[in-house]
Amino acid sequence: MLSKNQLKLITSLQQKKYRLSYQLFFAEGVKVIQELLDSNFELDHLYTTQMDSPRVLTQKKSLISENELKKISVLASPNSCLAIFKIPNEIDIKQSGLILALDSIRDPGNLGTILRICDWFGIEQIICSKDAVDLYNPKVVQATMGSISRVNVNYIDLEDFIVKTKLPIYGTFMDGDNIYKTKLPKEGIIIMGNEANGISPELEKLCKNKLMIPRFGSLQKTESLNVATATAIVLSEFKRFS
Amino acid sequence: MLSKNQLKLITSLQQKKYRLSYQLFFAEGVKVIQELLDSNFELDHLYTTQMDSPRVLTQKKSLISENELKKISVLASPNSCLAIFKIPNEIDIKQSGLILALDSIRDPGNLGTILRICDWFGIEQIICSKDAVDLYNPKVVQATMGSISRVNVNYIDLEDFIVKTKLPIYGTFMDGDNIYKTKLPKEGIIIMGNEANGISPELEKLCKNKLMIPRFGSLQKTESLNVATATAIVLSEFKRFS
Repeated sequence: MLSKNQLKLITSLQQKKYRLSYQLFFAEGVKVIQELLDSNFELDHLYTTQMDSPRVLTQKKSLISENELKKISVLASPNSCLAIFKIPNEIDIKQSGLILALDSIRDPGNLGTILRICDWFGIEQIICSKDAVDLYNPKVVQATMGSISRVNVNYIDLEDFIVKTKLPIYGTFMDGDNIYKTKLPKEGIIIMGNEANGISPELEKLCKNKLMIPRFGSLQKTESLNVATATAIVLSEFKRFS
Repeated sequence: MLSKNQLKLITSLQQKKYRLSYQLFFAEGVKVIQELLDSNFELDHLYTTQMDSPRVLTQKKSLISENELKKISVLASPNSCLAIFKIPNEIDIKQSGLILALDSIRDPGNLGTILRICDWFGIEQIICSKDAVDLYNPKVVQATMGSISRVNVNYIDLEDFIVKTKLPIYGTFMDGDNIYKTKLPKEGIIIMGNEANGISPELEKLCKNKLMIPRFGSLQKTESLNVATATAIVLSEFKRFS
């Protein structure tokens, strides 16, 4: 059973202001929830249509109907469970290795996919501009497929951070150097830009190493790659020689 | 104004069976529609809230209200126009260069993104298994961002085609050879597998060159990359030395 108050709380967590005020977020599906449980995210409560999975303390779970799950789920095809977790305390930025900086990323699916790509390539730190989509947006959490537990994400003033860092700064631009022919370091900051506008002029000024992913189509009409796709290609290049 | 019959026709085109029987599909947004017009897709009719854009013959367009557009759009935030086009005749498979073979791709966003990636890397031919998501699904059309006009897609029996071809066959697997250390050809067929199950056992048997995208995370817990992400990395590798 799902009480009116529980229903109200869970649906409110679709909005950032309520996630902030309650310091809670939710995830759906056995796989994602299990990964969060395994990674020491603190469970607040699990709502499930199947009492046996995932395994948590009895007092922390409620059996609900499929109809009730539909009401609280943000998925087109709801899985069998939804869990509320506490938002963990922010961890300091790890200033080593490769750091991915996301300038005004707005699409939750893109941020989630980028976390998954970072996790694959062993990038442990993402820094986002403050206007970027919230990490605990349910669509981001879902798209990470559990990688949210293994990549540290901080929301900061990117310009301020980049002015102060000693790490080399990389970014992709239409007029940059061919990434396939550029020697890339093991440490540095890689900036990826907003879906529609790319990297902001303020950050572009600070970006000493401009890279470009060559385009091969004979017509040269494809305007751009999706930002998650471009991130995958860029990280693959940074890692392939390491 | 949108008549009842027009409304009925357009919404029916969300379903493959009606697209097949009418031989029509629709696209939304000025940019995508303009690219299709520029690429000789035959316009059936344009429904727009702004009479001046895109430019088409007067008898081929109708001014509709934003409310009417909402009723026929599949987008969360409808653009200003929706156009119905004729499905073009199938073109023969181009048996040269790199061919991407998609085994049971089901997600429309993935197929659309993959077309956009192929377009970027100059891959002009995709072959899909017959159970793959339909190219003219509105979500596929939208995700291609116009690339649908520059990449040829055929739905065929992949096994049958691959048995007969003389081109070398490549595919990605968890236990393949490190793609970063493998010499890759300029011509060949690259198989990408289904979102949940990867490449089918039948096709795996025919795949003489097994590749693997190395994983760098220290925990090695990321199970997989999204198929569009993996396609981007694989095509980048095939093209980077060319």
